[in-house]
Amino acid sequence: MGNEFLDACRGQKTAFTPIWLMRQAGRYQAEYMAIKARYSFMEMCQTPEIATQVTMLPVNQFEVDAAILFADILLILEPLGIGFAFVKDQGPRIERPIREPNDVDRMASSIDVHESMGYVLQAIKMVRSELSGRIPLIGFAGAPFTLASYVIEGGGSKQYLHAKRFMYSDPGAFNVLMTKLTDATIAYLNAQIGAGAQAVQVFDSWVGCLSPSDYEVHVQPHMQRLFANLDKSVPSIHFGTGNPALYPALAAAGGDVVGLDWRVDLGTQRAALDNRPVMGNLDPGYLIAPRNVLEQAAQRVLDSAGGQPGHIFNLGHGIFPEVAPDQVKALVDYVHQASQR
Amino acid sequence: MGNEFLDACRGQKTAFTPIWLMRQAGRYQAEYMAIKARYSFMEMCQTPEIATQVTMLPVNQFEVDAAILFADILLILEPLGIGFAFVKDQGPRIERPIREPNDVDRMASSIDVHESMGYVLQAIKMVRSELSGRIPLIGFAGAPFTLASYVIEGGGSKQYLHAKRFMYSDPGAFNVLMTKLTDATIAYLNAQIGAGAQAVQVFDSWVGCLSPSDYEVHVQPHMQRLFANLDKSVPSIHFGTGNPALYPALAAAGGDVVGLDWRVDLGTQRAALDNRPVMGNLDPGYLIAPRNVLEQAAQRVLDSAGGQPGHIFNLGHGIFPEVAPDQVKALVDYVHQASQR
Repeated sequence: MGNEFLDACRGQKTAFTPIWLMRQAGRYQAEYMAIKARYSFMEMCQTPEIATQVTMLPVNQFEVDAAILFADILLILEPLGIGFAFVKDQGPRIERPIREPNDVDRMASSIDVHESMGYVLQAIKMVRSELSGRIPLIGFAGAPFTLASYVIEGGGSKQYLHAKRFMYSDPGAFNVLMTKLTDATIAYLNAQIGAGAQAVQVFDSWVGCLSPSDYEVHVQPHMQRLFANLDKSVPSIHFGTGNPALYPALAAAGGDVVGLDWRVDLGTQRAALDNRPVMGNLDPGYLIAPRNVLEQAAQRVLDSAGGQPGHIFNLGHGIFPEVAPDQVKALVDYVHQASQR
Repeated sequence: MGNEFLDACRGQKTAFTPIWLMRQAGRYQAEYMAIKARYSFMEMCQTPEIATQVTMLPVNQFEVDAAILFADILLILEPLGIGFAFVKDQGPRIERPIREPNDVDRMASSIDVHESMGYVLQAIKMVRSELSGRIPLIGFAGAPFTLASYVIEGGGSKQYLHAKRFMYSDPGAFNVLMTKLTDATIAYLNAQIGAGAQAVQVFDSWVGCLSPSDYEVHVQPHMQRLFANLDKSVPSIHFGTGNPALYPALAAAGGDVVGLDWRVDLGTQRAALDNRPVMGNLDPGYLIAPRNVLEQAAQRVLDSAGGQPGHIFNLGHGIFPEVAPDQVKALVDYVHQASQR
């Protein structure tokens, strides 16, 4: 019991299609908001007891088949020497964005994860203990390009013009930046695995702003090195969103599982990836649709997967704050029942 | 002379690859900003003399191979009874967004283009006269889904949750809304052609938020009807951005030319579209790259097109305000020279 997620990551047959949901702990939950009212977002991330409590919320409320550690992809920037803050209603802000080649020197070349991010490792141990083998725990990190874009843009962006200007104007300095972020991410994920993460996901949330040729030149080599250097004792998930045309290059870079957003037909895309295990890919917008429409949409994803082994059900993106928790429960239950084999 | 653009739209051989650029008249130009300082955006759109002057700016500054009428995709909402305003630094705001099925009744079922949008038709005549056959003039409209999303969201959006909620919850009312917008768009574009537009482009700028199955169910039938009812005496361009996985369905819906954004390799995508004429697709971010990097990127697009007839060079999206005009000039010149056959 409870191995469906890991089995599916390995492309093995499962009794039903496992499901977990990106941002399954979040603002759509009253319990999350109650905790958020008492602590800052950084306190929630950096206090293992609170991170554990938040991680467990959806595990206890819904019968998801994997837990994912409550944390943020930007946490790694702190030991790298890049200050940032979560500004209420504005999202994260980098204090001093990296805009010039020399700015890259401000970023550390390596991090001591145990020293500087021990709180994440501690949270992993605590969640594992709470889960006591019921379901596996997923660790995660942001992909180097997504982190680099944050650091260059200084926060969220629509067009990524600063990041592109930097990448096109100073490819050497950009490469150094990506190399530092890749090194740190490898160390971070391997430390998470060492602490007990039973799978790891790499989120390349902003990579969809790139053309295939820019991805291949400026990003893919780093992703290849990242996946090549991950501890292979647990499966890895490579999630990218925003540009389906990148999936072949993403898949070629690595990851036991490719996470697909909702912009593609899952079955078609999987066939084009030599039947690699895939995770996805319901449009999270369906969580605010009527129940029967939500279930029909979930069924279309299952139909597209065609009952082949190696499918982990998920959304194509994270849950929105506007979602009602009973819709999430209904989705989890529907996928479990409809996929019984 | 000056027929390269139209010949390429028809898939015919040309002496060089024609080029024009989306948003080639815009805030990156000092001359545009000088006009904008004196008039509101609506005044600029609704005064044929000013619209003509703005349309001609890039024609006179760069040797682009087509002019595109200066106008806005939202203008059609006014005769449809949907009030809106361009709010400084915030973009357009719909006064009373359509959120409930009954709200759709507030939208008119048809428009008299000559009566309500005569200023656009007048501008077309004036531009044609100014151009006196030098290069062709492109007319355009927003696609029904993009207009529907604006009207439902009330303005710009990141996740399109209101639009999706409406579409998923009330597909019948959404269909009525799309039908009204499609009818109006057909009338609008045919009137533009009647007034002298020598090609028309349909901008589905927001369609990339949809999955292929949602596109096929909720959007494609309307786009099929739209293109089927266009005056066939001039070529049509079907431009969609944000999701390369939709291109097969977009191309199937219609358009002599498919406009591609920068997220795909142009040659690969064109081959997958049975070698349909294509327009695109340089990442506009390259306009802020060093000159040699810009030229190399333009060359990659030309190489990807492989010198086959039926390629119109363009950006994958509009020019940003941050762009220096001499970069635009350099791009136009480079494409003309490098593509000489």
